[in-house]
Amino acid sequence: MATPTIDSAALTSGAFGPAAALSCRECGERYDLGPIFACAFCFGPLEVAYDFSGGVTREQIEAGPNNIWRYAPLLPVSADVASRPNLNPGFTKLVVARNLGRELGLKDLYVKDDSGNPTHSFKDRVVAIALEAARNFGFTTLSCSSTGNLAGAVGAAAARAGLRSCVFIPSDLEAGKVVTAAAYGGELVAIEGTYDEVNRFCSELIGDPVGEGWGFVNVNLRPYYGEGSKTLAYEIAEQLGWRLPEQIVIPIASGSQLTKIDKGFRELIKLGLVEDAPYKIFGAQAEGCSPVSAAWKAGHDVIRPVKPDTIAKSLAIGNPADGPYVLDVCKRTGGAVEDVDDTQVVDAIKLLARTEGVFGETAGGVTVGVLRKLVETGQLDPDATTVVLNTGDGLKTLDAIEGTTGATATIRPSLDAFRAAGLA
Amino acid sequence: MATPTIDSAALTSGAFGPAAALSCRECGERYDLGPIFACAFCFGPLEVAYDFSGGVTREQIEAGPNNIWRYAPLLPVSADVASRPNLNPGFTKLVVARNLGRELGLKDLYVKDDSGNPTHSFKDRVVAIALEAARNFGFTTLSCSSTGNLAGAVGAAAARAGLRSCVFIPSDLEAGKVVTAAAYGGELVAIEGTYDEVNRFCSELIGDPVGEGWGFVNVNLRPYYGEGSKTLAYEIAEQLGWRLPEQIVIPIASGSQLTKIDKGFRELIKLGLVEDAPYKIFGAQAEGCSPVSAAWKAGHDVIRPVKPDTIAKSLAIGNPADGPYVLDVCKRTGGAVEDVDDTQVVDAIKLLARTEGVFGETAGGVTVGVLRKLVETGQLDPDATTVVLNTGDGLKTLDAIEGTTGATATIRPSLDAFRAAGLA
Ligand SMILES: [Zn+2]
Ligand SMILES: [Zn+2]
Repeated sequence: MATPTIDSAALTSGAFGPAAALSCRECGERYDLGPIFACAFCFGPLEVAYDFSGGVTREQIEAGPNNIWRYAPLLPVSADVASRPNLNPGFTKLVVARNLGRELGLKDLYVKDDSGNPTHSFKDRVVAIALEAARNFGFTTLSCSSTGNLAGAVGAAAARAGLRSCVFIPSDLEAGKVVTAAAYGGELVAIEGTYDEVNRFCSELIGDPVGEGWGFVNVNLRPYYGEGSKTLAYEIAEQLGWRLPEQIVIPIASGSQLTKIDKGFRELIKLGLVEDAPYKIFGAQAEGCSPVSAAWKAGHDVIRPVKPDTIAKSLAIGNPADGPYVLDVCKRTGGAVEDVDDTQVVDAIKLLARTEGVFGETAGGVTVGVLRKLVETGQLDPDATTVVLNTGDGLKTLDAIEGTTGATATIRPSLDAFRAAGLA
Repeated sequence: MATPTIDSAALTSGAFGPAAALSCRECGERYDLGPIFACAFCFGPLEVAYDFSGGVTREQIEAGPNNIWRYAPLLPVSADVASRPNLNPGFTKLVVARNLGRELGLKDLYVKDDSGNPTHSFKDRVVAIALEAARNFGFTTLSCSSTGNLAGAVGAAAARAGLRSCVFIPSDLEAGKVVTAAAYGGELVAIEGTYDEVNRFCSELIGDPVGEGWGFVNVNLRPYYGEGSKTLAYEIAEQLGWRLPEQIVIPIASGSQLTKIDKGFRELIKLGLVEDAPYKIFGAQAEGCSPVSAAWKAGHDVIRPVKPDTIAKSLAIGNPADGPYVLDVCKRTGGAVEDVDDTQVVDAIKLLARTEGVFGETAGGVTVGVLRKLVETGQLDPDATTVVLNTGDGLKTLDAIEGTTGATATIRPSLDAFRAAGLA
């Protein structure tokens, strides 16, 4: 791999805040902080290990800005991160979902609505942390492979930061998604091939001198990128008045988000920021791409890859890298993994919009659909404090509901016609 | 007009907070607070008049929630407004626009980015105030005529509040906009006719017994609705550290938003919340619908209506009700009204996205395009603190840039092809 020139002065002066090292999730081997993502011994994924011995207080956090940087002391970023231009994502609304709770029979339900982020998906969180790592490593191009949300998040973050961006997409992507990805003016390269081929090409690029100075947010910056999802855990706990939810429903794409939210909850407990109370984590998949749910139901430890076929495209990862860790988390916390079909996804998108005025992406339909299924099958305690995630915006997946909704009536502009249509 | 039954107890118990009366903008006649919008004597528009004798402090505001309700003491809402279910819009980002400022030659530029609102336009602000008025008046249906942003804002707000909604649209609206408006599950009535005919039908409905209990946010609730735009002024001043911008560029549709931002600034000065410093207000229109700009340039006091023909559909009001008041404000503050053509709108959308990672609606392209034109023609002081508004989201007007942006290159998945395309 082409290793970029790293400013070692930057790395020793608190550039990564409380982050102390990278450690292998499989064998525990530790590495200096760098743009690496796989263990040299066992090829296991690397993640950020922290030294929180300095401690963090609620007051310290509450005095911070209204975005993810209020949690800077818990992230692999420097203390002055908020002073550098970035999209300042996070601190999205935790919606008290009384109407939806009433319909589903849940007494204390909340929707964590990440459509409020700058590019309207949770990806802004993870990209913001990757951007900081890219700056620390002296990378000058921010990159990724993407079929949707991530392309916009990378393009926008790079634009604000004044970095070059280059995003790779499959050449058969829908026109609307191409426009959204291209809007930020970075380079957008269409690759003649499947998404898997796009990914293989990106790995090749990272290994070649041509890729020197390139930070692929979800490849060579992945250990940092992944940590951004912890901020969802911190925000939910703080917004609940510094306590953990008793139950939480999280979508599964690669599975990283779910495992990092668990990591965030555990950190809060360890640091004494919340009471050490039990919580159950539930994973949500679309039936057309449900390898983790299938493994859970079969009692397997291994994930059998699938070929995705679902409208929930932002979750359509057939071979989820963190799948086995998701099974561990759900087992340890007493949760479960469940899936719903595309019809249930569409129904759930409309249910959430009709009851709470939150128009979610298909991924939000998956989590709300699974929430309903978990209640109906008795897997959720209806009296417990429950949070469901909406990770993206309905405007990005309009086609999912297009055939199933529309005008109630079409009439001439007259009161008689209005009355005749039974609308009065 | 069918007058709804008004709970007079509610009206005397602080339901409208500091609002004391409605007053005619033309003749000054005062009316009790009610669902009325035109002066019985001169047919002039009514607006909310306040009694701020109780005073308001910065500390009081800063202790409030991170949404428009922190300014409840300055709005026609009760002190406990935040306790009732609503979308909690506002407190959107004021982006420090260093990159855009550098390109345009402005030393201290900010973008007030209202795409961060719940349904991604500033309409959530005005609808939230109208919703409160609707509740006070005992209305059970929230309604409007719309061709876009307002339909979604009303549908979402009513859903959260548990009210019925009924939105009227022209039947030839594009499929994507129909889906967005219908997503919240309220009634959506397509009217066979032009937008003007839809509006006429709505006025008929309000005057008929059939319309009893109906609150049309931009008709019989308009005096309250309009006040929501003041929150943009409050937020900008607070986010600048409790000072007014020296220059601000605001889009003109009906003109209401611009005049209410001016009203907000004047209130802040009067209440001693900011220093009494001069500010200049600039209005922005698209050339294809620029009746106010045309009147300004010709030195007329009267607005000559036009037939709109521009991609900036959310600003396409050919006969803007508040046009004359806009001329007054721009004259009094030393500002101006300017317009740009559709090509400049598209260029400005892309400029804003490329420099700041903010993907704006066509209305944002109009304000940023006008900002650039004002600098180029020497109408703006490049050293003064300047704010430009982006009032909506680029995802809602993708078609505006669709033909002008796309992939930089399409290549086979190989490093040789990548190099050959000149991307290395
Ligand atoms: Zn290892
Ligand atoms: Zn009058």
